[in-house]
Amino acid sequence: MENTIKKALKGDPRAIARLISLVESESTFAHEIMKAIYPHTGKAHLVGVTGAPGVGKSTLVDKIISRYKELGKSVGIIAVDPSSPFSGGAILGDRLRMQQHALDPSVFIRSMGTRGSLGGLSRAAYEAALILDACGKDIVIIETAGVGQTEIDIVRIADTVILLLVPGMGDDVQIMKAGIMEIADIFVVNKADREGADKIVAEVNLMLDIAGERSWRPPVLKAIAESGQGVDDIIRAVEEHRLYLQKSEEGKKRRSSRIRHEVEEILRRDIARIVEKEWEERSSNDLIEALASRRSDPYTEAGRLLEDILGAAENSREVEGA
Amino acid sequence: MENTIKKALKGDPRAIARLISLVESESTFAHEIMKAIYPHTGKAHLVGVTGAPGVGKSTLVDKIISRYKELGKSVGIIAVDPSSPFSGGAILGDRLRMQQHALDPSVFIRSMGTRGSLGGLSRAAYEAALILDACGKDIVIIETAGVGQTEIDIVRIADTVILLLVPGMGDDVQIMKAGIMEIADIFVVNKADREGADKIVAEVNLMLDIAGERSWRPPVLKAIAESGQGVDDIIRAVEEHRLYLQKSEEGKKRRSSRIRHEVEEILRRDIARIVEKEWEERSSNDLIEALASRRSDPYTEAGRLLEDILGAAENSREVEGA
Repeated sequence: MENTIKKALKGDPRAIARLISLVESESTFAHEIMKAIYPHTGKAHLVGVTGAPGVGKSTLVDKIISRYKELGKSVGIIAVDPSSPFSGGAILGDRLRMQQHALDPSVFIRSMGTRGSLGGLSRAAYEAALILDACGKDIVIIETAGVGQTEIDIVRIADTVILLLVPGMGDDVQIMKAGIMEIADIFVVNKADREGADKIVAEVNLMLDIAGERSWRPPVLKAIAESGQGVDDIIRAVEEHRLYLQKSEEGKKRRSSRIRHEVEEILRRDIARIVEKEWEERSSNDLIEALASRRSDPYTEAGRLLEDILGAAENSREVEGA
Repeated sequence: MENTIKKALKGDPRAIARLISLVESESTFAHEIMKAIYPHTGKAHLVGVTGAPGVGKSTLVDKIISRYKELGKSVGIIAVDPSSPFSGGAILGDRLRMQQHALDPSVFIRSMGTRGSLGGLSRAAYEAALILDACGKDIVIIETAGVGQTEIDIVRIADTVILLLVPGMGDDVQIMKAGIMEIADIFVVNKADREGADKIVAEVNLMLDIAGERSWRPPVLKAIAESGQGVDDIIRAVEEHRLYLQKSEEGKKRRSSRIRHEVEEILRRDIARIVEKEWEERSSNDLIEALASRRSDPYTEAGRLLEDILGAAENSREVEGA
């Protein structure tokens, strides 16, 4: 394991892939890996790219990768599809297309889908991003398949969040409602040669004006991902936002809130494991029978279990304090 | 509160609505309410209705309600839309249409949308179902807006799950892939006057044959929700499935697995609260600074915190045992 970590930290793609797999599958090595990795993190810039299906996220990410490569930057991509069974196919095709970069050692691409809990996915995506960060990627892009609540939770971990819109989808107003407005740092109206592009740009600008003054005013850019038009503007905006975060109070706040969130998530996962184990041991047929016949209720039983695990801690602390 | 609970248990719609709101918003009364409610649960039959957007779920549910009313049954409906911002509008319209039943005291309709975590939504839907059960509804219908993973998690709590399909949506095969096959107890091909209805019926039957023998073979019914055709067959199938669950090993297994799941969910929620509180108390600026500068890592800090919470419990238990 130590050897794999060493190799990965030097940028070896195979070793990196292995670390991500081990962490994603919650292997017994996961903890060791993340502890070893963590001191090397904090250098990469994490960019989240989100937007409704069909707005051209993958095409744009593709072009962004190419441009970063020309600029001599190494890039890692995590493509996440937490969504309903109905959107499983498309993203796979996109991934295949992105494999044009696969032979380039400076680009690392990784897809992730739902396995089990949704919270687990945003956690896995974040840990993969940390690994890519530690292993020397300058830019880590996290791309989601849609813009549901789960996707918002996932891109929230990024430093800079790009929201893609397109003219004529009729859902622009709904996006505004969904609380994604607050987390987007850069708006991009893609397929800007289509009718209605200027209208969306104006609408978003209006919404941002109404939202009131903020220390970072998200730019609203136009792009045509297919031809690469507008990509330079996007990269420039990302860089500006990065510098802004470095210098501003807002950037500092965002970093500490991310760290807080990290610890909380790890705690939640670890405690959940302990409780699950404890519950498995205790949930006898008798207990289930008592609940089924309504002689007890789940609220009382859950309370009892928790008290046994944590209440004792409370008591002993009181004793210590006495 | 006691008074509201008493009124609700007698079937008072306002009191029921209030209890559901309090539980949904995780008010401080939630625990008390659910404990008081629980002994009265276990009588209603919970029916989940799911299917892709546009298959006619609401129209069908509408017709099912009318039929149950004619049969002298009281009905509660929980309409859940956990989905992305893109499907917020339609279901509202459906709800408005369903309000034709709103003046009837034997029918209780409740809509629920995403607020915060997705796990929270399936929990809230289930607790609302328990409340409706305790308050005397014979049938509780849980209707979802789509068929994503979240929706599957939500309908999973039902006794009988109805999956709606329609001809010509091209997504039939995808549904089969999505693991919804395993949780559907009744298949309904709606809009059965459209071309391709028989083909879907045959396809689903074939899939069920391939899936192998099960003690309950889900029927594949045809319906035209608009005209009410097929609704009687559906209600008969629900009743058959109810009787099957009452008598079979499978039914017993399903009830205990639901109870296990209930306790686990309550535990998970309570743990999240405890962790949040503990972490808030302990997360000093110094600690965040140490993490931000990578002098420490979240894994070590979370481990330390856990040890404090649980290790103390371990110690005190050892002392007790000594």
